[in-house]
Amino acid sequence: MVGCNSENATANAEENAKPTKKATTKIRLAMTWSITMPILSDTVKHYAKVVNELSGGSIVIEIFPAGKLVPALGVFDAASSGQIDAFHSAPYYWEGKNTAFNLFSGIPFGMIDSEQNAWYLYGEGMELWREIAAKYNLYPMLGGATSIQMSGWYKKEMNSLKDFEGLRIRMVGVAGQVLSKLGAATKSTPGGEIVPNLERGVLDAAEWVSPAFDQKLDIHKVAPYYYTPWQEAGSITEFVFNKQKWESYSKEVQAILEVASREAHMQMTAMGSFYNAKALETLKKEGAKVRTFPPEVIEGFKKTLAVVLEEESAKNADFKKVLESYQKFQKEQATWTQDSLGAYLAIR
Amino acid sequence: MVGCNSENATANAEENAKPTKKATTKIRLAMTWSITMPILSDTVKHYAKVVNELSGGSIVIEIFPAGKLVPALGVFDAASSGQIDAFHSAPYYWEGKNTAFNLFSGIPFGMIDSEQNAWYLYGEGMELWREIAAKYNLYPMLGGATSIQMSGWYKKEMNSLKDFEGLRIRMVGVAGQVLSKLGAATKSTPGGEIVPNLERGVLDAAEWVSPAFDQKLDIHKVAPYYYTPWQEAGSITEFVFNKQKWESYSKEVQAILEVASREAHMQMTAMGSFYNAKALETLKKEGAKVRTFPPEVIEGFKKTLAVVLEEESAKNADFKKVLESYQKFQKEQATWTQDSLGAYLAIR
Repeated sequence: MVGCNSENATANAEENAKPTKKATTKIRLAMTWSITMPILSDTVKHYAKVVNELSGGSIVIEIFPAGKLVPALGVFDAASSGQIDAFHSAPYYWEGKNTAFNLFSGIPFGMIDSEQNAWYLYGEGMELWREIAAKYNLYPMLGGATSIQMSGWYKKEMNSLKDFEGLRIRMVGVAGQVLSKLGAATKSTPGGEIVPNLERGVLDAAEWVSPAFDQKLDIHKVAPYYYTPWQEAGSITEFVFNKQKWESYSKEVQAILEVASREAHMQMTAMGSFYNAKALETLKKEGAKVRTFPPEVIEGFKKTLAVVLEEESAKNADFKKVLESYQKFQKEQATWTQDSLGAYLAIR
Repeated sequence: MVGCNSENATANAEENAKPTKKATTKIRLAMTWSITMPILSDTVKHYAKVVNELSGGSIVIEIFPAGKLVPALGVFDAASSGQIDAFHSAPYYWEGKNTAFNLFSGIPFGMIDSEQNAWYLYGEGMELWREIAAKYNLYPMLGGATSIQMSGWYKKEMNSLKDFEGLRIRMVGVAGQVLSKLGAATKSTPGGEIVPNLERGVLDAAEWVSPAFDQKLDIHKVAPYYYTPWQEAGSITEFVFNKQKWESYSKEVQAILEVASREAHMQMTAMGSFYNAKALETLKKEGAKVRTFPPEVIEGFKKTLAVVLEEESAKNADFKKVLESYQKFQKEQATWTQDSLGAYLAIR
């Protein structure tokens, strides 16, 4: 899960560059994150800087951290109504509006970064995303990917599906639904409360994000078994604009905002790889033990996921439509990925 | 190997957008590829279009395909001397100038896309590349990655290291040096001559690029065993400018050219994934048989590679310096990649 930070933001909104004489476009952009949230906030600052440079100073993005202008999870409604011009967040936060948004972040056993990028840019991904977001008066674009996420910290090793019965775990989204069906008690605990809850025995395990994020919370000191991924293969984050506002911009401004979003997307993936590698090294030195779930558990996850996806498809036609496109594309990509990247990582 | 096309280009140089009244910057960019070369030429066209849009029409890139203005492999000298402003090619084509350029494309068992991007953008990669290119009066930037490349087409299955003794194979660069040391007779055959040479028995095997490129040559019809990757994990292509010309541009023009290069880099990776997946499906239907070299062969490649790299380090201080940075970075990244992406691809 991307670490949504809804605590009061301490930093002030900041302009990323001083407007010059030719300044004409000012964009009020709210984030679901605090200004100190690593990688995510850095990506938004990078975007604002690049947009400013590309426009010779004529587009100024004012960044508002979570809670400053609107609450962390209030950004969707605020942009939809035009209270703010844009926001940076993650699609799966809007599953309460429409469960199809979950699919634009990714699904368990779903596409990895390279496959997902191909779906967005050369498959139907972007078109479907914009079609659904338009119902809410929004215009989304790529905003970075977290890359593959670890699947969480456990106090004990997990040896069978039975070990999930009654397990109290911080796990949200589709993966949370899978674990619930397997008998776990899933919770959505804010980052700052994870370690106290693990210590008090309210939680037995917790998924947060990835090494660079997890390291700051010190979860490994109370739950040292760090399980390899199955649930979030490359969650997408997003820059989303109010649709009328977007349409009011000139072609040149639109080109700058959109090209910069793809550049920021790529930049965040590289940034994530850099910081996650460093953080994992430190975590291992401090006692983190990396484990992979046994085949029986993985099979159980896959079977249960299929049930969850089928149930949701029956409830929501948007979800069904997007899932079909997603799964068809993944199937095609997965053979190539396995014969190239998969085979390579197995022998390197 | 990226398929370098040195045949006479048939297409005319084309302007990607008409200059508007505010047109001020015109860039003459030559490619190492023909205008019909898939993915590579498409990336350059995409770059020119994006640069034009970002600048509101004020930057116009004139694209010259291989052979039109200068020969395919003449672009380096032409940009170095200022005869052209810029070119699009692949770093390892310049090993004749300085073997360190090989390392900016990648090495066998080297970094995958995500790791390499992290090295360029957050490690020392870009800085070292520009330091060495400056000796030749050039200023390079990312120009797309081919993603992981298959390791070639063989007439027969390869069961041991002995099978490489006397093998006549089209294989170039560092991987070619490795196979030579193992007793193979390596050749650098142009794309159009691969199939005739396989048919006549002049070649027993041939590496070209990846499914989307290989499909067009019909190699699978004469050499059906398609071996999984070890030699090019994510070869980088490049946009390279004449250094004085680059320094003469305004900050805004530089920002547009550079940000667009990173966006094109990302776009090419997604494009490659899309087309390679489709092409592999077709190739398999038409009889391609995907194989992985046995562990003994992989170990032989690794040991021989170490010798090749050591020999080159002893000869060229630039090579040694870049290799040390590359290998240190890869080591750090590889642990993270294995525990996340590697573990995921093994269970998906």
